[in-house]
Amino acid sequence: MRIAELSRRSGVSVPTIKYYLREGLLPGGTTTGSPNQAAYDETHLRRLRLIRALIDIGGMSIAATREVLAAVDDPALEGHELLGIAHRAVAPARRPVPDAEAWQRARTEVDDLVARRGWYISPDAPALDKLADVVAAMRALEMVELLAVVDGYADAAEAVARHDLGTVAARMAAVPPGDPQRRAAMVGAVVLGTVLGEAMLSALRRLAQEDASARMLHAGRTGPGSADGTAGAGPQRA
Amino acid sequence: MRIAELSRRSGVSVPTIKYYLREGLLPGGTTTGSPNQAAYDETHLRRLRLIRALIDIGGMSIAATREVLAAVDDPALEGHELLGIAHRAVAPARRPVPDAEAWQRARTEVDDLVARRGWYISPDAPALDKLADVVAAMRALEMVELLAVVDGYADAAEAVARHDLGTVAARMAAVPPGDPQRRAAMVGAVVLGTVLGEAMLSALRRLAQEDASARMLHAGRTGPGSADGTAGAGPQRA
Repeated sequence: MRIAELSRRSGVSVPTIKYYLREGLLPGGTTTGSPNQAAYDETHLRRLRLIRALIDIGGMSIAATREVLAAVDDPALEGHELLGIAHRAVAPARRPVPDAEAWQRARTEVDDLVARRGWYISPDAPALDKLADVVAAMRALEMVELLAVVDGYADAAEAVARHDLGTVAARMAAVPPGDPQRRAAMVGAVVLGTVLGEAMLSALRRLAQEDASARMLHAGRTGPGSADGTAGAGPQRA
Repeated sequence: MRIAELSRRSGVSVPTIKYYLREGLLPGGTTTGSPNQAAYDETHLRRLRLIRALIDIGGMSIAATREVLAAVDDPALEGHELLGIAHRAVAPARRPVPDAEAWQRARTEVDDLVARRGWYISPDAPALDKLADVVAAMRALEMVELLAVVDGYADAAEAVARHDLGTVAARMAAVPPGDPQRRAAMVGAVVLGTVLGEAMLSALRRLAQEDASARMLHAGRTGPGSADGTAGAGPQRA
């Protein structure tokens, strides 16, 4: 197909597609007789959709997207390494911490948590520093009650990770070894599971919070008996 | 204290503090004899730490931070409304969707999920549209297996929301009604619970994913018997 049809089917404008071509995110089309008339196929369409999911849903920069796509394209990388690259790419740049000593104490708390959970984590995993940032901020803001929920959150995170890895395993099992689709299946599950899964969990947490808050408010106004949601007098359902 | 000491204690540079003053995020200090020598107190320090947590950890823009702080400062707003404002402020701007019809189908799936879970959600909650974006992207990328985990994720989100609301309740219970600290406690728990809690859950999910992936990799190499983490031969612990 021509670039105009690729644009129409992907919903990505022609100038943006040309930008992705220049930036090396999207491989060039097959050149035809005329110099401005490259031909594109379904692989370009799928790649464009992947790029847009990483940028629009994952909020990733062009540079981070390029890094993830390079890893996706590298046949030497397997699932576990790909996950690390995806995690590093989606980790936003950290700002310098105001109080280095307090941060180091928070980082030690994070190491203690990892040891307590028995988690196998690479010592340079960016999520360790990110979690230390959060812990240090909670302490600086005297919000130590929030730290009491960390093990409850960790339980939820483990449940979610089991679902994630189950999805990868299911995708792998569906494609026989040696099939070129097997790698694409794994890559998709790992990269998109990281990015789209995070956006999904964030949206669901907000919805569950709103529901819990609405029930609490409702209970406060009319007594706890009506907080079970059966009264039909609660906030409007979506 | 003078601005130099406020800068030293908060770790925020003097030019940045002056920028927050100009932007109205930080109230001005008490003017002293000399025009350039305003005096600041502990409330300014706490406010600066709150601003930095929202910006650095929550990734919020100056405009979104101003909106949340205005809500925090409005005594007419109570917990449930504040939560809604915090959710709207932390929701990044959505890009137009490429396929409006496919998106509408995804939005219907989200409404079905909300009905299935029995959640009380305002119909204009931004998380509904955000979740529809994710569902539409998963369908466009033919990653429908990822949609199978949505109820597992929703279970985890509910567990997390119960922890969040429990924290708010604990903070409220610790301060008697009528105490001006009560409002500050509630506001802190709601706003920071939203922002810091999200960053905490995101970091924990990545750590739990890395652990689950390491165990899967380890199991694949040496047999499933050693995947329980007791062998001591797994990846390095942090």
